[in-house]
Amino acid sequence: MELTKRQEAILEIVRSNGPITSEQIADRLSLTRATLRPDLAILTMAGLLEARPRVGYFFSGKSPNRIVAQKLRRIEVGTVMSRPVVVQDDSSTHDAIVAMFLEDCGTLFVVDEQGLLQGVVSRKDLLKLNMGGPQDLQKLPVGIVMTRMPNIVTVEAGDSVWTAAKKLVVHEVDAVPVTRRVARSDGKDGLEVVGRLSKTNITRLFVELGEST
Amino acid sequence: MELTKRQEAILEIVRSNGPITSEQIADRLSLTRATLRPDLAILTMAGLLEARPRVGYFFSGKSPNRIVAQKLRRIEVGTVMSRPVVVQDDSSTHDAIVAMFLEDCGTLFVVDEQGLLQGVVSRKDLLKLNMGGPQDLQKLPVGIVMTRMPNIVTVEAGDSVWTAAKKLVVHEVDAVPVTRRVARSDGKDGLEVVGRLSKTNITRLFVELGEST
Repeated sequence: MELTKRQEAILEIVRSNGPITSEQIADRLSLTRATLRPDLAILTMAGLLEARPRVGYFFSGKSPNRIVAQKLRRIEVGTVMSRPVVVQDDSSTHDAIVAMFLEDCGTLFVVDEQGLLQGVVSRKDLLKLNMGGPQDLQKLPVGIVMTRMPNIVTVEAGDSVWTAAKKLVVHEVDAVPVTRRVARSDGKDGLEVVGRLSKTNITRLFVELGEST
Repeated sequence: MELTKRQEAILEIVRSNGPITSEQIADRLSLTRATLRPDLAILTMAGLLEARPRVGYFFSGKSPNRIVAQKLRRIEVGTVMSRPVVVQDDSSTHDAIVAMFLEDCGTLFVVDEQGLLQGVVSRKDLLKLNMGGPQDLQKLPVGIVMTRMPNIVTVEAGDSVWTAAKKLVVHEVDAVPVTRRVARSDGKDGLEVVGRLSKTNITRLFVELGEST
């Protein structure tokens, strides 16, 4: 929403002088109340001004930034997440690296034979293997480098993308599994992996939001 | 800008049936034209609808998301970028991996003795080395895995973050160097690295924008 010069002038008058009546605003701008009416309606609808009967208009304290914030907080993980890429928990680190290149993703989820989440392994985890000199990665199981339950940060499809982005930043991870709690056959709870939310999804969403015209 | 249910209904009618006159919109909603007039004025002023004399209202193709888009497009790379992490072009791939862990960053920039950009190396580039079996990374120069000039995607500090994010998505990279063109001592131009813009910066910015209240 682009404000006109006149709407910006009105905002400035209300910000400095509010509460102020529409007559007083009209006076200051040497315009009629009728001329101002659509502008005041727009500024009020946009949440930038508030109007109280017999008091006048005052500045809502909401900035256009709040409109941005509200928009960002309303988008759900399920609408932007990617398909998860999983490997079985008996895979080798070599298998994990091959899966990463085949699927071109930076984070794998490790699941048990029931498909429930056991671990998360990132490029960084796998690259760390190189620090100790040459190794036979076919013989090293993925379990030695992965982050294990219950230390895994997860989100659900109905969470806001904003909450998920905050988890990525706070926990310093590139991606989190999107999960759903299910009953396991042994009676215990487990997490089924339904998606993957990464910094790539956030960056794509950022680009998309900036494209609206 | 928060629309009322009636304004959303009007938008939907115009989107599907425009151009359409105010009488026709009023008919569909079983309301009088007088009742609709303020809503139509607001939707038109907000740029969501356009009105043409003797034709009627039609959908402008602009959405309320425009305010979000404008905000995102106005932020500059220089305000959110990180410090660049560089290695010399005679480093080994082992040195590069060590630098990545010491600095905890996923993308390194390779520079010559004048500090000018020669290449970019990512975790993915380095992880690829493992695909061919065990190797002595101390003996493999970083040059064999890096992306070289002039194939490097770069941005400048004054570019919009949105443009930079678009480059990350389109070129499928996690980070780009923020550069400044300088004269080299041999008379040719070169790029000095002044920053690093990554998907992490975009994710942090996304979180920050959602925090405004």
